[in-house]
Amino acid sequence: MTIRWIRSVVGLAACMATLGLGAATDLDAKPVTVADLLAGAPPSDWRAPNPDDTVYLDLASGRVVIELATRAIPQHAANIKSLVRAHYFDGLAIIRAQDNYVVQWDDESHRRPLPADVHAAVEFTVDSRAAARFELLPDRDVYAPQVGFLDGFPAGRDPRTHAVWLAHCYGMVGAGRDDPAESTGAELYAVIGNAPRQLDRNVALVGRVLKGMELLSTLPRGSGEMGFYVASESPMPITAMKLAADVPESERTPIEVLRTDSATFRSILAQRRERHEAWFKHNPGAIDLCNVPLPVRNGASVH
Amino acid sequence: MTIRWIRSVVGLAACMATLGLGAATDLDAKPVTVADLLAGAPPSDWRAPNPDDTVYLDLASGRVVIELATRAIPQHAANIKSLVRAHYFDGLAIIRAQDNYVVQWDDESHRRPLPADVHAAVEFTVDSRAAARFELLPDRDVYAPQVGFLDGFPAGRDPRTHAVWLAHCYGMVGAGRDDPAESTGAELYAVIGNAPRQLDRNVALVGRVLKGMELLSTLPRGSGEMGFYVASESPMPITAMKLAADVPESERTPIEVLRTDSATFRSILAQRRERHEAWFKHNPGAIDLCNVPLPVRNGASVH
Repeated sequence: MTIRWIRSVVGLAACMATLGLGAATDLDAKPVTVADLLAGAPPSDWRAPNPDDTVYLDLASGRVVIELATRAIPQHAANIKSLVRAHYFDGLAIIRAQDNYVVQWDDESHRRPLPADVHAAVEFTVDSRAAARFELLPDRDVYAPQVGFLDGFPAGRDPRTHAVWLAHCYGMVGAGRDDPAESTGAELYAVIGNAPRQLDRNVALVGRVLKGMELLSTLPRGSGEMGFYVASESPMPITAMKLAADVPESERTPIEVLRTDSATFRSILAQRRERHEAWFKHNPGAIDLCNVPLPVRNGASVH
Repeated sequence: MTIRWIRSVVGLAACMATLGLGAATDLDAKPVTVADLLAGAPPSDWRAPNPDDTVYLDLASGRVVIELATRAIPQHAANIKSLVRAHYFDGLAIIRAQDNYVVQWDDESHRRPLPADVHAAVEFTVDSRAAARFELLPDRDVYAPQVGFLDGFPAGRDPRTHAVWLAHCYGMVGAGRDDPAESTGAELYAVIGNAPRQLDRNVALVGRVLKGMELLSTLPRGSGEMGFYVASESPMPITAMKLAADVPESERTPIEVLRTDSATFRSILAQRRERHEAWFKHNPGAIDLCNVPLPVRNGASVH
């Protein structure tokens, strides 16, 4: 009994692996797959994230690459850049891992001063007339009137108010907060479970993990309340958190992301809504925003 | 900066922890939380899963408790019971862990014979007029015309055809298959990421993990295609897979599940759709089927 069925469900890692192998396209013999579409994508359908918007979370176990949604959350992006340049996160640790929910990192002791230019802000929604680019999807959603992509990040939109907001999909990174609503970005978390979309419009999401997600998702769950580590457990240390632009080019992680405004991405969406592979006995005929693949591959070089 | 906000989002582990601590209810001072509702639930709102429908996946790292949805997938349930009684899975391993998708276990070498009473079957949907009990939810869904719970498991329904099917939520367990559509249950997987609902009605889901989910979700991801482990990696060994009914009572894992047909469960659903806690600045006003908490607690004893 083989597992051919899961070949139809190409995730991020599989996309990268397939590309690495240079998979041949075989359109005559079988329905088009995501791997086929990626193999045929022109170089211009890929983009290299801006090093000024790319943060490295370097753990003792390896590097997590995070792209900031700078135009959606300008104050938080400025804060995070200031925090990483002040080495605020260096030597801290992932202090919480709650199964099917989030991992979290911050200065649990509240001893580290925030840089003077870090200002608390409320950035839950973005005016859709702002600079960030929104691409509307036709798909239904449980939580948002409309869904799509905002500068390439999964997002919801309310056509009545023109508000747009980033959505809590797997791998999204957010700024934890207390009540009142404001946050700085000094407390960060990443989603490691089923999309907790009830948090949308309640938190400033700041970006998403492009690479190294498994370093966060496989962390041992904390045995304390809400997944916090207790004294007998060993939180994963943060070696440093850095802006890619501040790292010598030779030490950057080359990476490319498929453009959500590309023809290849639109074809992938169509392929994932209507499943023509023989394995599918029931065609889903729909896709959830947080199940849309956002392909990432190793880049040839960093510019 | 504290993390009080996440107190509002009580997951499975937190429910159990809170119950273990005997949290006091404080209805006057603040909106009702899930922890409050669970603390006030009468004993009759909880059920102990039937040991004849409960399977232990004993790993080198600990025990995963799986409840079979026997009335929804009678042939697969019979097969799995026959397989575990024939020690089919003992000494095998978790051979695959794909991030944000599934872990999988089966006899990769195809050397082990199936017991004679194991028969391949197609059990993707259940006639809603069958014995299994369906509780309809009013909530929207991206993939199914209607959603609810089938014998306590998350499910979709089509009112036109009367078909009901189990839904691929986090922690659900399914029977992998090739093409054609039939499967036996000798190849199993568990969902460890965002709900891959496109697989609904394409696979026989057989049950869900009630306890020990973190033993599966934290497994190192395989570096092979689709998360399969390669030769240099060490798959997690399966010590044994057993039916709880075949284990002496003293070695069973006492566990209780909140009944989905209880008043407490209905109150939890209402609380989770409309968030009145001060932390929530935007009330989601909706809940996705796979975000509904299905509380589990340690049971006092096993009957």
